[in-house]
Amino acid sequence: MGKRLSSQTIKLDSPVYIISTASIAGSKEGEGPLSSFFDSVIQDPLFGEKSWEKAETKMVREAYSKLISKSGIPVSNINYIVAGDLLNQCTASNFGLKDSDVPVLGVYGACSTMGESMSIGAMLIDGGFAENVACITSSHFCSAEKQFRYPLELGTQRTPNAQWTVTGAGAVMLSKAGDPTKDIMITHVTTGKIIDKGIKDANNMGAAMAPAAVDTLSAHFRDTGRQPDFYDLILSGDLGYVGKNICEEFMEKEGFDIKGKYNDCGLIIFDRDKQDVHAGGSGCACSALVFCAYMYKLLKEGQIKNLLFMPTGALLSPTSSQQGETIPSIAHALSIASNCIS
Amino acid sequence: MGKRLSSQTIKLDSPVYIISTASIAGSKEGEGPLSSFFDSVIQDPLFGEKSWEKAETKMVREAYSKLISKSGIPVSNINYIVAGDLLNQCTASNFGLKDSDVPVLGVYGACSTMGESMSIGAMLIDGGFAENVACITSSHFCSAEKQFRYPLELGTQRTPNAQWTVTGAGAVMLSKAGDPTKDIMITHVTTGKIIDKGIKDANNMGAAMAPAAVDTLSAHFRDTGRQPDFYDLILSGDLGYVGKNICEEFMEKEGFDIKGKYNDCGLIIFDRDKQDVHAGGSGCACSALVFCAYMYKLLKEGQIKNLLFMPTGALLSPTSSQQGETIPSIAHALSIASNCIS
Repeated sequence: MGKRLSSQTIKLDSPVYIISTASIAGSKEGEGPLSSFFDSVIQDPLFGEKSWEKAETKMVREAYSKLISKSGIPVSNINYIVAGDLLNQCTASNFGLKDSDVPVLGVYGACSTMGESMSIGAMLIDGGFAENVACITSSHFCSAEKQFRYPLELGTQRTPNAQWTVTGAGAVMLSKAGDPTKDIMITHVTTGKIIDKGIKDANNMGAAMAPAAVDTLSAHFRDTGRQPDFYDLILSGDLGYVGKNICEEFMEKEGFDIKGKYNDCGLIIFDRDKQDVHAGGSGCACSALVFCAYMYKLLKEGQIKNLLFMPTGALLSPTSSQQGETIPSIAHALSIASNCIS
Repeated sequence: MGKRLSSQTIKLDSPVYIISTASIAGSKEGEGPLSSFFDSVIQDPLFGEKSWEKAETKMVREAYSKLISKSGIPVSNINYIVAGDLLNQCTASNFGLKDSDVPVLGVYGACSTMGESMSIGAMLIDGGFAENVACITSSHFCSAEKQFRYPLELGTQRTPNAQWTVTGAGAVMLSKAGDPTKDIMITHVTTGKIIDKGIKDANNMGAAMAPAAVDTLSAHFRDTGRQPDFYDLILSGDLGYVGKNICEEFMEKEGFDIKGKYNDCGLIIFDRDKQDVHAGGSGCACSALVFCAYMYKLLKEGQIKNLLFMPTGALLSPTSSQQGETIPSIAHALSIASNCIS
């Protein structure tokens, strides 16, 4: 049963273990710096399907299937799936998991989804409601551009602040069972508030999301009494180049110097010098793939002992932008510890 | 800490109290059988705003505000808001709650949202992570028709199986604090699986959702060992006239006779003889309004002692329907007991 440290952070009474991850990446991601870490890379953006939405759905289905085989947990022992994505009505998750035969809790947190699903999953396990929870999310460059921006066929020029939606699906198996002396575990959960500082430019989501990241990070440090130095790495989801700089600067004003410890998944998944992604990666799969493919490996090898993982989400819709609204944002942070032997 | 009865149902160790509800309804709902039970009825579908989406957003904001004043819980003591809606990217919830200053967990369960949010909220409280959780959802006939079906201006004729999306917002305050001998409480949570029996007609969502309702209901009775007779009322979310009949018939095949105990919110919120809603009401606000305005009153007056509340959701999108997909569905059930004195 979790111990509440403050209004935003809870400390799990028993650690919740991350026993397995799975990742399926698009071809551009497969050409990037993390290429060797993905479970599989799809070369065709349609993934053999007739639409990008169906391709994304298939990625969810296959990531979930891979997660089950890698974790070795029988389906009958998975108590909940917590999943969501960017598509209208979260159809990639709902269609991708419709044959799972497991109770499903659908979530919407835009690109913070992996953070939200792991937060809920961790609390369900620590609360005694589940032994194993699967957390899954996805995004697809083509389905996201089509839905949120312009038809790809137009060849619209991207602004320098724009980010590139990551194609892929990531899945995490959380479990009650593990060994605190040698496994990877979630210890704290800091749930974000919706923050809106009035940014309206849907091509500058890093700037829109940075204040939410600052709010959640500051809350986490205040609530736990930890300093940024406690962590080997503080990792935001998809602030990109623009948002990361804002986050660092604003954190300094809050009295926390994160510079030496901080990076963003949007700057890790692509090589900005070679891959023409402008301000970096974004999308639910951005933080999901970086975590499931790369961070999990570093935690497993003991190269990272303490990770603060904080996916970030911009809660806009095309309709809200067309109606002149701002971009409310959110960030959910998880403190993850590894006692794996390096 | 919850006790797991089986793969789908948990029994809460300590009851979670429903200490307050709030409801804002549209004008058509205000002319229906429940007219006298809503906290307020809006006469103008735009609610003084410039778009239906902004009107729905305002309903969320006002329902939340009303919930806080009715419950008497200070904002600083609300640990989480769990909320979602039907609009793309759940913007009614996200914009409506952006100034709440409370951690937010966004959910997507289509019209099952009130069931999902109350399920998560109940587990967060029983798990020791929260003292108070606010659960909120909304829908709006005009924004839903615009997004899911046809522009209202076309005056498209509706099919006999079609349902009428309820305009409104409902909010529930869950709390750890209460008296089991005289209050209203959630005792069990049965979380639904995604069920898809191949229905493709987006104008017949009752038929699409009925199998999900049957699956969750059967699981609930199997898991708890209870028979339908245990409940004063078994209440599905928005199966409407078509889905309700299918549900009754299929439940009989499963070995459970629910006929005398069963009703559907979609048949309660409107008068089908007088209000021209065809198969009944639907939308997130359908089950939310019926519960928050009417059922809560019956529980409070002790007229209902045991309620099985099961909002139902059709997990389609316009894109999935246009691409020839079926309609996967889900239903989440909560067992609610009242020891209020009649």
